[in-house]
Amino acid sequence: MDLESLVEEFPDFPKKGILFRDFNPILRKPGALEQVAEELSRDIQVDDIDAFAGIESRGFIIASIMALKHGKGMITLRKAGKLPGKTAKTSYTVEYGKDIMEVQRHAVRRDQRVMICDDLLATGGTAAAAASLVEEVGGKVAGFLFVIELADLKGASKIGRYDRVSLLTYGDESA
Amino acid sequence: MDLESLVEEFPDFPKKGILFRDFNPILRKPGALEQVAEELSRDIQVDDIDAFAGIESRGFIIASIMALKHGKGMITLRKAGKLPGKTAKTSYTVEYGKDIMEVQRHAVRRDQRVMICDDLLATGGTAAAAASLVEEVGGKVAGFLFVIELADLKGASKIGRYDRVSLLTYGDESA
Repeated sequence: MDLESLVEEFPDFPKKGILFRDFNPILRKPGALEQVAEELSRDIQVDDIDAFAGIESRGFIIASIMALKHGKGMITLRKAGKLPGKTAKTSYTVEYGKDIMEVQRHAVRRDQRVMICDDLLATGGTAAAAASLVEEVGGKVAGFLFVIELADLKGASKIGRYDRVSLLTYGDESA
Repeated sequence: MDLESLVEEFPDFPKKGILFRDFNPILRKPGALEQVAEELSRDIQVDDIDAFAGIESRGFIIASIMALKHGKGMITLRKAGKLPGKTAKTSYTVEYGKDIMEVQRHAVRRDQRVMICDDLLATGGTAAAAASLVEEVGGKVAGFLFVIELADLKGASKIGRYDRVSLLTYGDESA
């Protein structure tokens, strides 16, 4: 099925001037989640990946289906204060200020190859923070998987040194 | 594998007197997520389920793997302000106050049978809120799936009229 045709557009959400592209219709279409997992798997070397990390909260969906499909571990990259035990934290800039991302130190083994997953690549701040966290706790970033990439926002430039797969790309990186 | 032996306990998290049972070690163990999906599937009638709904954010993990495994739709029940379009909201009591849960009105079709998923059943406030939301937008609650149930907290009493599966139960309901 045509995944792009399922994405719904909502002008002025969450605030005026933003065109929100909603991937919920993909999630709720029977079979589409399977297709997302398959398409995301096409251009990656699964044997070179030890775990899929999901960025809270929609990234959990992507990391979970990939981990299930390939029999790998799934790691949660969470908002501050949600994870017990020893953690590493990083602060990053989001649209309306600063946010903190956290990972359990023992969640990642030394040199474990971690593929980072999120629904959306926008400005890339969140993705770059995720990569720095994975590396801080001793992991290697195997790359990034996104369902939607908003190329105008040039997020790719912040994670340019990593491989990435984006299923649906909107706009023009050179804009 | 023995899923229960993977659960890690953290005393006094997120605050003094709480024993936090962490299911992240299950997620990151290769193959365990598959086992969770299989065990959760044993006592449900998949043919009588149209979609799996995940409660943000760890419920997304459970709903995603179940939806993928069974080729069904996945619905997100989110914190306030995250979902575009027409939504239904409900307010519910959490440990430290009130929270709001939201669903897109068009995410659930009339009489669609929705299985609600979360990682944990504690006091049941969140679960009951999820059921009321699904019903408000026209769906039928097919039941609940949890990985962990803290029976002492008697959450089952709040959702007693629905079927539920809990993989790992701690404590005693009659305590």
